[in-house]
Amino acid sequence: MAHHKDPLPDLRATVQAYWKAAGAHDWVTFDKTLADDVTYDLPQTGERIHGRSALSRFHRDYPAAWHAEVLRTVVQGYSAVTWLHVTVGLEELHAITFFTADPTTGLLTDITEFRPEPYEPPTGREHLVERY
Amino acid sequence: MAHHKDPLPDLRATVQAYWKAAGAHDWVTFDKTLADDVTYDLPQTGERIHGRSALSRFHRDYPAAWHAEVLRTVVQGYSAVTWLHVTVGLEELHAITFFTADPTTGLLTDITEFRPEPYEPPTGREHLVERY
Repeated sequence: MAHHKDPLPDLRATVQAYWKAAGAHDWVTFDKTLADDVTYDLPQTGERIHGRSALSRFHRDYPAAWHAEVLRTVVQGYSAVTWLHVTVGLEELHAITFFTADPTTGLLTDITEFRPEPYEPPTGREHLVERY
Repeated sequence: MAHHKDPLPDLRATVQAYWKAAGAHDWVTFDKTLADDVTYDLPQTGERIHGRSALSRFHRDYPAAWHAEVLRTVVQGYSAVTWLHVTVGLEELHAITFFTADPTTGLLTDITEFRPEPYEPPTGREHLVERY
C-alpha cells in the first residue's frame, strides 16, 4: 500500500455526522467528530465543558427526548454554523451552533451553542411588522 | 468605455457594510446592501418585516443606543452568518444573523436574526461544566 495521508473529512460532513449521531444516540460516532480537548460553550448560561468525554456525557445525560431538523449549514474553511429547529416534548426552539475544526485533523475543537427562546416583541413597531 | 458588468460585491464585504452602516446610522449605505423586497425575520417574536424601506425604518427607529462588535463571520456562496456581541445601555447580548443574497445582484434578500438572552442553567450537570 502506498503511504499517503487520508484526505481530511469535509467539515460539512463532520457537522452532519455530529448532529446525526447525537440524534441517533450513536455516541461512538459522535465522539469520532470531536478533538480530545474540545471546548463547548453555552454563552447564555456561561457554562463551559472541556474535553470529549465530558461533552459526550453532557449529551448522553440530556434529560429529555428531542428531535432536530437542520435548517441551514454554512461552512467556510475550518468554521461552520448550523441552525436547527428542535422539538423537545411540546416545546419548539431554535439552536444555532458555531463549530471550529482543527486544520490538521478535521476534528471539532470549539463549539459554541445558542438556544434563543421566544419573547414578546416590544411595542411601538407594529406598523412595520407582520406576525407569523 | 467597454461594456462590462461590474463584479458582484463579495458577500463578506456586503455583510460588513451592513453592520458598519447600521452602527454608524449611515442609512444611505445601509439601504444599498438590501434588495428592494428583502425579508427580515425575528423567529423569537414571530415578527417579519417586508421591504427595504420598512427594514431601514425599523433600524432607524431602534429606541436605544447600541454598539456591536462582530465576533465571527462565516460565508459560503450566497449564504452568510454573523455573530455579534452587542452592548445596549447596560445590557450585553449576542445577536446571530443569517443572510441570503441574490446571486445576480449580490443584494441581501433574506435576513433572519436571533437575539438569545441569558438564562439560568438547569441543575444536575454541575459536575460536567465550569462557569465563566
